[in-house]
Amino acid sequence: MSGRAGSRPINMKNIAIIGVGLIGGSFAKDIRKHSTKSRIFGVDSSASHLDEALELGIIDEIADYDILPDADFVIVAIPVDVLVQELPKILNLVSDDCVVIDAGSTKSLVCKSVENHPKRRNFLACHPIAGTEFSGPSAAFQGLYDGKTNIICEIEKTAFKLQERALGLFQKLNMRIRYMNAEAHDRHIAYVSHLSHISSFMLGKTVIEKEKNERDIFDLAGSGFESTVRLAKSSPAMWTPIFEQNKENVVETLEEYIQNLTEFKRLLQHDDFDKVYQEMDNTNRIREILKGIPVGNTK
Amino acid sequence: MSGRAGSRPINMKNIAIIGVGLIGGSFAKDIRKHSTKSRIFGVDSSASHLDEALELGIIDEIADYDILPDADFVIVAIPVDVLVQELPKILNLVSDDCVVIDAGSTKSLVCKSVENHPKRRNFLACHPIAGTEFSGPSAAFQGLYDGKTNIICEIEKTAFKLQERALGLFQKLNMRIRYMNAEAHDRHIAYVSHLSHISSFMLGKTVIEKEKNERDIFDLAGSGFESTVRLAKSSPAMWTPIFEQNKENVVETLEEYIQNLTEFKRLLQHDDFDKVYQEMDNTNRIREILKGIPVGNTK
Repeated sequence: MSGRAGSRPINMKNIAIIGVGLIGGSFAKDIRKHSTKSRIFGVDSSASHLDEALELGIIDEIADYDILPDADFVIVAIPVDVLVQELPKILNLVSDDCVVIDAGSTKSLVCKSVENHPKRRNFLACHPIAGTEFSGPSAAFQGLYDGKTNIICEIEKTAFKLQERALGLFQKLNMRIRYMNAEAHDRHIAYVSHLSHISSFMLGKTVIEKEKNERDIFDLAGSGFESTVRLAKSSPAMWTPIFEQNKENVVETLEEYIQNLTEFKRLLQHDDFDKVYQEMDNTNRIREILKGIPVGNTK
Repeated sequence: MSGRAGSRPINMKNIAIIGVGLIGGSFAKDIRKHSTKSRIFGVDSSASHLDEALELGIIDEIADYDILPDADFVIVAIPVDVLVQELPKILNLVSDDCVVIDAGSTKSLVCKSVENHPKRRNFLACHPIAGTEFSGPSAAFQGLYDGKTNIICEIEKTAFKLQERALGLFQKLNMRIRYMNAEAHDRHIAYVSHLSHISSFMLGKTVIEKEKNERDIFDLAGSGFESTVRLAKSSPAMWTPIFEQNKENVVETLEEYIQNLTEFKRLLQHDDFDKVYQEMDNTNRIREILKGIPVGNTK
């Protein structure tokens, strides 16, 4: 990452945010902080989200794809199924001097959707590991990206000058940059992100089903339960296409998780509590591992 | 709960804390805040924990069971396997005017261990839903119990005057009291607490196993992962006997959880993403449910 690029002020005239939810809206708020000169245009399939984003001061103007030829910087923060459809159309419209970044939680299909596009060099594939279980413009906040990891894929396919512009913004936002290929990204992120969401959703489902007639029971839950089911509040519209695009990796992680749970159950049933202890003791290493994770509202 | 009892000052001469870890130590710190007159004695199988508790000002004096005949209030906060062995011995030693409370995460076997004890009326079976993933005296803090739920079982078996003394303390500490029978407690707590711990431990195990040769991968994890594996930092010495004592209920919750995960995997494999969406959408109800959970470092 270029220190020179990062130390420059954000000097972009027209910025388009496609998808003015938590991710796009938080980018807009941070850009606003670092640049009073930029004009931020919001594009979204939801008219009410656009109105809300305008009202909250997240965007300066409601726009559509007609703005794209005049944009210097385009941030596409929409569900990954729509992303792979829209990205080629967006690249069709932007100028040669515009950089388009995404924020999708899958990278293989996203990169594949534009691999032969004549404007592939205008696209930078990104996955900022940041977010919360909430969504929509009202969930956006300044500082979401501070100290967070941004995984960039296929950096070599993006024009140098445009890489530099995007990296300059990420540096302003104090993001940590990691470079990976798209396949490795999808394989590893299945373990450290996608599986957590499924384990959380299914934990929530199991407890809700069991306790459906005894709502008072949740009075007995503490923040241990709250912590493990937090991700079950996440948006199905965002997560369904992620699981679809990363199906193969996600199914593999699920199989290993189910196998470990089944083995733990077997130990309990066979009263092998020495082994039960050992399993938990071994996993306590997660304490050391987690120390390396940047704190805050990351996903 | 008696308002009269709660409004009285804590007026106890000798308080014994058996187990000076997070739970016992936090009780000691809160009692200290509300009563400068009480003398707090620490009893523990770990000499180093006792030294630490004394050094941290959690206890006034290191003691052993010889102090019990002179105690007004005894808090037993030790792993549930040791608890069921020690509780009858403790009751043997206390005076008729002493109340003994526990803090175990299981209640059936604990209550059974003293059901025919001649001093059963001196015991109040408690489960404060409070704690963190950390343990030992240094993890103790003032205010741990503020606003937290305390489940009391078999209240009718405790002498009224002694109930009143314990409830007076809980009111001072601003705890919410819930009364249940021991079997219902164990059945429900398996869902809202014990299962969360296993789901978290096995998630940690799955990811550590997969990524053992690629430690950098945890760089990619955000606090979504951190949130779902937080409980995997918990103490195996505390949790193994909980799972043992509540084996039947825990195995049942695990079976339902594994079944839900397996069904979700099947939906993915059969490309039934409408149903995948529906499953997550249904579970989003957890948002409303969680609003009722007291926030803070509860377990």
